[in-house]
Amino acid sequence: MPKGHNGKILRVNLSNGRIAKEEYDETFYRTYYGGRGFNAYFLFKEVPVGADPMGPENRLVFSLGPLTGAPISGSGRSSVGAKSPLTGGYGEAEAGGFFGAELKHAGFDAIVVEGKAAKPVYLWVHDGEAEVRDASKLWGMNTLESQEAIRSELGDGRIRTAQIGPGGENLVRFACVINDLKHAAGRCGMGAVMGSKNLKAVAARGRGGPEWADPELIRKHAKWIADNFMQVSGGMHNLGTSGGLIDLSKNGGLPTRNFQTGVFEHAEAITGQTMADTILVGRENCYACVIRCKRAVKVDELGVIPEYGGPEYETMAALGSDCGVGDLKAIAKGNQLCNAYSLDTIATGNVIAFAMECYERGLLTREDTGGIDLRFGNAEAMLAVLEKIARREGIGGLLAEGVARAAKKIGKGAEELAMHVKGQEFPMHEPRIKQGLGVGYSLSPTGADHCHNIHDTTMRPGPGMDRIRAMGLNIPPLAFNDIGPDKMSYYTHAVNWSSFGNCIGMCLFLPWGFDRTVELVRGATGWNATLFELMKVGERMNSLLRAYNVREGITAKDDTLPKRMFQQIGDPLPTTAPLKEKEWQAAKQFYYAVMGWSSDGVPTRAKLQELGVGWAADAIGV
Amino acid sequence: MPKGHNGKILRVNLSNGRIAKEEYDETFYRTYYGGRGFNAYFLFKEVPVGADPMGPENRLVFSLGPLTGAPISGSGRSSVGAKSPLTGGYGEAEAGGFFGAELKHAGFDAIVVEGKAAKPVYLWVHDGEAEVRDASKLWGMNTLESQEAIRSELGDGRIRTAQIGPGGENLVRFACVINDLKHAAGRCGMGAVMGSKNLKAVAARGRGGPEWADPELIRKHAKWIADNFMQVSGGMHNLGTSGGLIDLSKNGGLPTRNFQTGVFEHAEAITGQTMADTILVGRENCYACVIRCKRAVKVDELGVIPEYGGPEYETMAALGSDCGVGDLKAIAKGNQLCNAYSLDTIATGNVIAFAMECYERGLLTREDTGGIDLRFGNAEAMLAVLEKIARREGIGGLLAEGVARAAKKIGKGAEELAMHVKGQEFPMHEPRIKQGLGVGYSLSPTGADHCHNIHDTTMRPGPGMDRIRAMGLNIPPLAFNDIGPDKMSYYTHAVNWSSFGNCIGMCLFLPWGFDRTVELVRGATGWNATLFELMKVGERMNSLLRAYNVREGITAKDDTLPKRMFQQIGDPLPTTAPLKEKEWQAAKQFYYAVMGWSSDGVPTRAKLQELGVGWAADAIGV
Repeated sequence: MPKGHNGKILRVNLSNGRIAKEEYDETFYRTYYGGRGFNAYFLFKEVPVGADPMGPENRLVFSLGPLTGAPISGSGRSSVGAKSPLTGGYGEAEAGGFFGAELKHAGFDAIVVEGKAAKPVYLWVHDGEAEVRDASKLWGMNTLESQEAIRSELGDGRIRTAQIGPGGENLVRFACVINDLKHAAGRCGMGAVMGSKNLKAVAARGRGGPEWADPELIRKHAKWIADNFMQVSGGMHNLGTSGGLIDLSKNGGLPTRNFQTGVFEHAEAITGQTMADTILVGRENCYACVIRCKRAVKVDELGVIPEYGGPEYETMAALGSDCGVGDLKAIAKGNQLCNAYSLDTIATGNVIAFAMECYERGLLTREDTGGIDLRFGNAEAMLAVLEKIARREGIGGLLAEGVARAAKKIGKGAEELAMHVKGQEFPMHEPRIKQGLGVGYSLSPTGADHCHNIHDTTMRPGPGMDRIRAMGLNIPPLAFNDIGPDKMSYYTHAVNWSSFGNCIGMCLFLPWGFDRTVELVRGATGWNATLFELMKVGERMNSLLRAYNVREGITAKDDTLPKRMFQQIGDPLPTTAPLKEKEWQAAKQFYYAVMGWSSDGVPTRAKLQELGVGWAADAIGV
Repeated sequence: MPKGHNGKILRVNLSNGRIAKEEYDETFYRTYYGGRGFNAYFLFKEVPVGADPMGPENRLVFSLGPLTGAPISGSGRSSVGAKSPLTGGYGEAEAGGFFGAELKHAGFDAIVVEGKAAKPVYLWVHDGEAEVRDASKLWGMNTLESQEAIRSELGDGRIRTAQIGPGGENLVRFACVINDLKHAAGRCGMGAVMGSKNLKAVAARGRGGPEWADPELIRKHAKWIADNFMQVSGGMHNLGTSGGLIDLSKNGGLPTRNFQTGVFEHAEAITGQTMADTILVGRENCYACVIRCKRAVKVDELGVIPEYGGPEYETMAALGSDCGVGDLKAIAKGNQLCNAYSLDTIATGNVIAFAMECYERGLLTREDTGGIDLRFGNAEAMLAVLEKIARREGIGGLLAEGVARAAKKIGKGAEELAMHVKGQEFPMHEPRIKQGLGVGYSLSPTGADHCHNIHDTTMRPGPGMDRIRAMGLNIPPLAFNDIGPDKMSYYTHAVNWSSFGNCIGMCLFLPWGFDRTVELVRGATGWNATLFELMKVGERMNSLLRAYNVREGITAKDDTLPKRMFQQIGDPLPTTAPLKEKEWQAAKQFYYAVMGWSSDGVPTRAKLQELGVGWAADAIGV
């Protein structure tokens, strides 16, 4: 049995209440590794082709990596997977916090939830045991209320939770799963799947946990980060993820007013420094992490409490600049509501920004909005619509379907204003300044996604180039607005690496690099893992997820970008430029070819076999 | 400038005597690494399409890796590259010994020889300087004679040489380059190219050498091998490379009588143990190596002296079992003659075995052989024909063309008896028992080759499987006679790794493994190299060499195997089985696909670009 993992996967059928503890062999663990790998395996193997994402046939997988719960910074990460109600393809979201580590210490490596409960339930997992419990009284509660109720009912204030609030209960397509009140497994609508199963929460508590293969090796790196984090991640500690927001705006790369421009006149008001200077009351951490990049904020007049954390960069831009809102307190309020209701802040902000642009262009009227003056910059309107989305009330019912479906329903050209790929809303990175990442929006298996992507900044001289060298790539430093073969060479391997990152149970923000990651995997598992192996795992996942999507009818035709991305951005700066259609098409073809896929973007049998997942070739008939 | 290398490449034009010291930037060094990489670069960039391999336009490249000459076991390896007179494609051969290290210490990383000298010359390279010197008096000498003459002329008994003897002078197509009298850069006819340039020898002496980036790291591993070599390579020390010969025969895998069978009744007489018990007088080493796998033998009655070393496994089988010869002393004599004349023992044995079969089948007559009774097992005949080949005398003139050309000339079905791929003779590994390696014969850029290949034994449980795991491959232990997708997955990465091995200047036999190799590369160069990078280098080379061959008209149609390989082997044992045509075709297609080549076996533009050698795509018009 592999170290790092417990060797046990919990299966819960909510239709009939059956609970089983399953064991898989070492080959399974070393092929799929954890997180994304487990999600992909169970979805592909178990969810029938064409199944309704919100139907009982879908699986909801809570999955951990081999390092989740290890005594080292960054190991608080866990994953949720399901067929996505937004894209109809592979869905997944990662979150930090404490829930993942607690689940690991409770004795499981993953939970596979199937079926649908007849009435609201929650799952209580503790020290190798599991129990489905009634959640009728919890239904309708905010996440803070329900977490308190669960802890009280079970008599243990240290229980960790992964929950939905009213957003997930009401099947908002972009509802998320909230861990520990403030860590969101945000993307792909995982909370809607949870809601569709009548599953209010997973509560975990454990004092055991797996054996680590080489605790001393893990300790060595834990000491290194403790000694050096201010040098290597000091900015993240001081200012959190939104420390760089102001610079983005200066360079024309801060999504503003539904991606109409990249410069926001109120950027200063919503950047990490301003938050630190005003509403910040604490820097918090995830499990075992010394970085403490998480924010806790307090705004008495709006009832914003530290328990729900504070806005990350994505939230700051989505509910802020993208909605034209420069009111930090209102954004903090919006963030709290999203965490209380289990709404993805990215999609929520994106869809409200979309509605604002529709409103300003006359595609939505004051009648449609129920009297709300839904102009860009109207913070109250932003919050009001957010409330309506969670309850699917009025305009909220339309927007709760996500920007792609809402735009289709509105018609009259609204589809051109919908910033999404494959039905998933854009995160807060501007493809006309980060063009490699823009190509990534088209290609990601989960639609427009920032966790399955590259950061064009790593193409610059310095540590970024050193990393590129360590990949064996012979390419010069490249510009942001370059998506030629050199950039795409890096892109291909970098997304394989980030895909591996989604398997491992470690935070993407931590400065581990290649060598330390290899050693940490060895320290957890005892495997003679190499960087080559880890990259292969990432590559395996990317081809496997692609095959899954192909099976569901999602192919090269869906590797799109909104028309706006090929047009000049508002407030053009020397750093901004529209993507060029021809180069973008060539970039995608380059990726297909290097990944070993056909020119239609379908993984070849040989490639899937080489990656050890030949069964997926059978499944898609190549 | 990279550490490990000197940063200087010597260019010598023999037509006009011009000598230049060239410098290349770090990107060049990190892209091509050394050895094979340098060969490939200079051949592809400089030798015109369709150039005659024995004409002045061909380049002869002596190239070192970043570890050649480092103070550690295995670092004696160097490479010779040229367009091959046997295959008409990329040609290359590696050798151990001391010459490579001496050339490194003399201040160069490679020598690129171009043109053709008007009369015999040798090149004298010492401490950063080089000189073309007259070799008229040396021409016709055996390698021992000419080495002594050079040392005497230059007054330095510690000079190291890479030379040709009469075989190379007489343009025997499979002539080799002999380093230090007994280390052969054997394959691909590199000695014929040297002869065609009227270059008798390169003599090197140097007391400088490059700076090593991390001498302590190199020392750490040097100490490890010194402390542990009897555990990890004791067999190689005790019995040399022919220690396993007897077991091969027992399992039907010892090439015997021109690959008609795999069991040799006199195997016991020619195995490593017998050599150790009889004619062995010393265990010798290559530069800095503690293993001492090299043999020194003495047979007074045949004039066999230790200066020429002793037969390796390949020689033992080629001049021995493959010719039906069970006379160890005669094989030792043949080995000495090959080293004295600069003939590749593999090709020499193979072509004599071919002639023997032709003779027994009546395709060659006693008249053709000049009265020699060229039956299998006739040791004297083997030696007599060997002498004739070196001098291109009588039947020797025919056989000096190599087995493919000789067979074509003989006609009457002789081509079916010629064990070669792309014009290069089979080494002594039986494809009907090592089927992965058999597929490799078809696919190698240098034709039938064992240094660009896998050993099916590494597919077995134990350290082999651990290595496969470290490649990130999820495959079970596999049978020898399996060439399905799992085996080919391993094959693909393993040949990339062995291709990297041909760049690095380290012996393939040393037990360094992945981790230590990565550290050694770092210790030499100071680069933050990873296994991923090293595998990429190997992959880069395989696609680059393929592109080179495509440019010369060598394509999928040439990825052949002799018909015999698809027929039942003589003396069939449970372990032996013919290759199956359909599976073999599928195996090749699998390789093309995973390498990112078209189904015609042509590297795609995207793959070449991804590997950082997009210029090769331009060169072959893809």
